[in-house]
Amino acid sequence: MEDSKVATILEAARKRFAHYGISKTTMNEIAADIGMSKASLYYYFPDKENLFIAVVEQDFSEFHRTIEALLNKPNKASYKMKKYVSMRNELLGKLINLSKVDGVNMSQALNPVYDNLKIKLFRKEKEMVTRILEYGVKEGEFVKLPPETYADLVITLLTGIRSQGILLSAGGDVAAFQERIASQASLFVEIFLNGIKKSKSQS
Amino acid sequence: MEDSKVATILEAARKRFAHYGISKTTMNEIAADIGMSKASLYYYFPDKENLFIAVVEQDFSEFHRTIEALLNKPNKASYKMKKYVSMRNELLGKLINLSKVDGVNMSQALNPVYDNLKIKLFRKEKEMVTRILEYGVKEGEFVKLPPETYADLVITLLTGIRSQGILLSAGGDVAAFQERIASQASLFVEIFLNGIKKSKSQS
Repeated sequence: MEDSKVATILEAARKRFAHYGISKTTMNEIAADIGMSKASLYYYFPDKENLFIAVVEQDFSEFHRTIEALLNKPNKASYKMKKYVSMRNELLGKLINLSKVDGVNMSQALNPVYDNLKIKLFRKEKEMVTRILEYGVKEGEFVKLPPETYADLVITLLTGIRSQGILLSAGGDVAAFQERIASQASLFVEIFLNGIKKSKSQS
Repeated sequence: MEDSKVATILEAARKRFAHYGISKTTMNEIAADIGMSKASLYYYFPDKENLFIAVVEQDFSEFHRTIEALLNKPNKASYKMKKYVSMRNELLGKLINLSKVDGVNMSQALNPVYDNLKIKLFRKEKEMVTRILEYGVKEGEFVKLPPETYADLVITLLTGIRSQGILLSAGGDVAAFQERIASQASLFVEIFLNGIKKSKSQS
């Protein structure tokens, strides 16, 4: 693949998605924006859904790089965990803008095209949170715990906060529900960290 | 309303739902089961969805009575909380059987008829968990916390565990996903209680 062409397509697609949402964007418009023939565009991406997935994966790659950098810093595990949650909220807020979906459209958008993506991202997230937890256990900041099981729970709960928020916000104010999600996520992570921290007497 | 007639209808409907699921049950069959005319049945319930809701509400009323009894016992708040979560799992497992839905059918079943019910039950659950948390704070078992905010979070997280479980289990083994949900819910409640308990030095 010619990377620069792909990059140009992704940039144009991202602009369209961010302004009009996925459902109101056509492959024709994206091709026209960059003076490319429809046939050429389809050569790179078989359909709009796959193009959308590629844009989402680009954002996730950037997120992973940021988290990778965070993991390599000497901060406390609890700091890393909080930072992870707030950066995750930011990322997912950006993606909500990209798809311009409300609750109802979101459940319609839960179609199998995205299932593979979701499973892949879930695994990757679990991996990152596992590393934060392992680090906290190793450093004696958290009690001894099975990091993978706990990471699985954390991602499940964070995703759950989000999907409940989306459900409850159906047709409502996106900004308000983003705020609700963010505050519930940060309250959750506070309680969670408090629940797994090693007490003074245990150290 | 003639209560005994309604009770007879609900009992017959429950049997049908439990054996065949909501989508494979017809109003005709329910009427026939109890030797009632279709017209009489429709006099009590305008459609199958409303009859299903009435069956679900019957289960929830029973759940509420059990929780009410639990709330009035002298046990510790943390015990009440764990008991609440495990009884909630039992109840919802029973309801899953009643609708015989897998993940895919479940998101299709997320139709507006059930939205009012869900909002009503969410509020009721929040109220019950608020009372458990208030009790724990009053008894000095939990740190000072805003009970309603925390109850909202708890129900959101429990519902989130469930909806994620349903999503991930689409088309899969119902028993396996019920087990996953139960174990994640009980792990969550352990960490949560640990996260809000008053430490010895704080008392």
